[in-house]
Amino acid sequence: MNLKEIVKKIEPVDSEWVEKARRHTMELAIPPRALGRLHEISERICGIQQTLRPDVSSRAFMVMAGDHGVASEGVSAFPQEVTGEMVKNFLRGGAGINVLARNAGAQVLVVDMGIIPDIDPGASEFRNRFHIRKVGRGTGNIARGPAMTRALAEQAILHGFELASELFATGVQMIGTGDMGIGNTTPSAALGVVLTGKPVNEMVGRGTGICDSAMDNKCEVVKRAIEINSPDAADGLDALAKVGGFEIGGIAGCVLAAAYHKRPVVIDGFISTAGALVAHALCPATVDYAFAGHCSEESGHRKMLDFLGLAPILDLGLRLGEGTGAALAMGVIEGAVRVFNEVLTFEQAGVSTSK
Amino acid sequence: MNLKEIVKKIEPVDSEWVEKARRHTMELAIPPRALGRLHEISERICGIQQTLRPDVSSRAFMVMAGDHGVASEGVSAFPQEVTGEMVKNFLRGGAGINVLARNAGAQVLVVDMGIIPDIDPGASEFRNRFHIRKVGRGTGNIARGPAMTRALAEQAILHGFELASELFATGVQMIGTGDMGIGNTTPSAALGVVLTGKPVNEMVGRGTGICDSAMDNKCEVVKRAIEINSPDAADGLDALAKVGGFEIGGIAGCVLAAAYHKRPVVIDGFISTAGALVAHALCPATVDYAFAGHCSEESGHRKMLDFLGLAPILDLGLRLGEGTGAALAMGVIEGAVRVFNEVLTFEQAGVSTSK
Repeated sequence: MNLKEIVKKIEPVDSEWVEKARRHTMELAIPPRALGRLHEISERICGIQQTLRPDVSSRAFMVMAGDHGVASEGVSAFPQEVTGEMVKNFLRGGAGINVLARNAGAQVLVVDMGIIPDIDPGASEFRNRFHIRKVGRGTGNIARGPAMTRALAEQAILHGFELASELFATGVQMIGTGDMGIGNTTPSAALGVVLTGKPVNEMVGRGTGICDSAMDNKCEVVKRAIEINSPDAADGLDALAKVGGFEIGGIAGCVLAAAYHKRPVVIDGFISTAGALVAHALCPATVDYAFAGHCSEESGHRKMLDFLGLAPILDLGLRLGEGTGAALAMGVIEGAVRVFNEVLTFEQAGVSTSK
Repeated sequence: MNLKEIVKKIEPVDSEWVEKARRHTMELAIPPRALGRLHEISERICGIQQTLRPDVSSRAFMVMAGDHGVASEGVSAFPQEVTGEMVKNFLRGGAGINVLARNAGAQVLVVDMGIIPDIDPGASEFRNRFHIRKVGRGTGNIARGPAMTRALAEQAILHGFELASELFATGVQMIGTGDMGIGNTTPSAALGVVLTGKPVNEMVGRGTGICDSAMDNKCEVVKRAIEINSPDAADGLDALAKVGGFEIGGIAGCVLAAAYHKRPVVIDGFISTAGALVAHALCPATVDYAFAGHCSEESGHRKMLDFLGLAPILDLGLRLGEGTGAALAMGVIEGAVRVFNEVLTFEQAGVSTSK
């Protein structure tokens, strides 16, 4: 299947199911809408899954890793080797996303979307959940030319789409997206500028923690990347190819897969939301299927979420990525779904309604 | 043990353990403080439990129920019978707190602190977790006189303290507080006015959902309650006795017990925070042991939290009470503790540190 065929089959969420779900919520033995956002979450999932028995009991994370040519411009506080080292850490089960996905009852898939080194999963318990889909060994340096060709950009998206589709085929009901890639807040900021129309200084942040002078440099790099490459804001694939990244394309593919298969997807922070922006540019209806796990400390993330019309579930000052904020939010989402399914109605509970 | 003896033995959280915990966080293979609030949460729990192996694996909710004489002033959208009906619903396992405590892996204790009817738990699975500690059959109408005597106010607090202490003795590591009581946002608002010094119109909200004219009446009722009773802002017991409630006293007792036994307590919304205000008035150090699960839609809640210096973990527009916001927050707290305990260090993971 190619990208055009995928996009053609994606539909907006069915508002009739959302309406039916709202009526069920009104019957629960609680004051009207007293659980606020939890009701919106569960009702949207009813719309997504077209059911009044929403189910998010089986869940998984797709942690997409890629390297970035632009790392050579001094845009990160960490050396580029950390991308591969962290992928190894994921396969050891010792990173933040491993811990928080365990806490959320979600399995973790790790995908090499295009990191520089070759990682051997060895005897890791993750060996069956480590997928090598190298689109390249790191992207081109976007400050000097395109990140990748248009064909490779489509390839990156299709890898994400296919892996997520396989997960859904095994019965997974909800996926979360995560990322790893030293330097990847730079292409994410560039995509944010191109696809939301906000200025560079509102989209560029400190990533893993760079100093003031490195921030100035990072802004310059993003400006240059956009000037040199002239990405087309109306063409998500062009934007991804020119100023994006392999893992960002993979994440966009996950979001498309969720919408295609009518399943909720929880996006994480700045990089995941850049992926969601690409998916939205390709197919605006994908946003109906996406939940924003949290609002990152990375400046620009809130502007991306505002552009997509997504209200973050959590706001805890996180800026790690990997999927960690989405994993924490899954606990809230599961709570919302359980309230919808398990709270007794006024009638069942024998509780008087309001006066 | 009386209240004075309890208060005397409560100490502030040990800042040396918090400092040691911060040093451990810096070794984890993540950029410095990249998980924001999660680090603060886990480090404070290290300080509370005086350990570098924080443990919140065993957790329980104390849902305190009471009736309120002031309900006869038309301050609630629901009839007073709902208090007892909801207690029965708790014993059926069908209420919001049952569902969200299950989701958080926490047991639920239900305490009749002074509701009007007698509830027979029958064959409910909760029959061993339903405690009858009736301080009275509903409080006095605070718009016309005190809620209870000073002796009964101390009794209410001691009941909460003793039940929470019993839980800690069985190995429970973290408790959450919840409430049920038609009319109880009115005494909570009155306590908020008295103990924070904020004006009535900033503390009174819509509770379960009253209309504008009922809001005006509720403001008048709170003003009258304070005028008639002249509660002493410097004396938490006097404030509780004059304008409080039995379940609010019980919650204050839970907070005191957590501080006394050096365990974290997660407070829920407006009513639970009124209980925490009473505990704080009796012993300011109790705040060190309290986490604010969420910020409620009930106006005034944020002002209470600001006064106590507590930043809410969640902000999801909830206004149900019962402990529901605290239950959702427990998932985040457990995530924070697991990150602290389970994420590998840079050295263990073989990951390079920042440049």
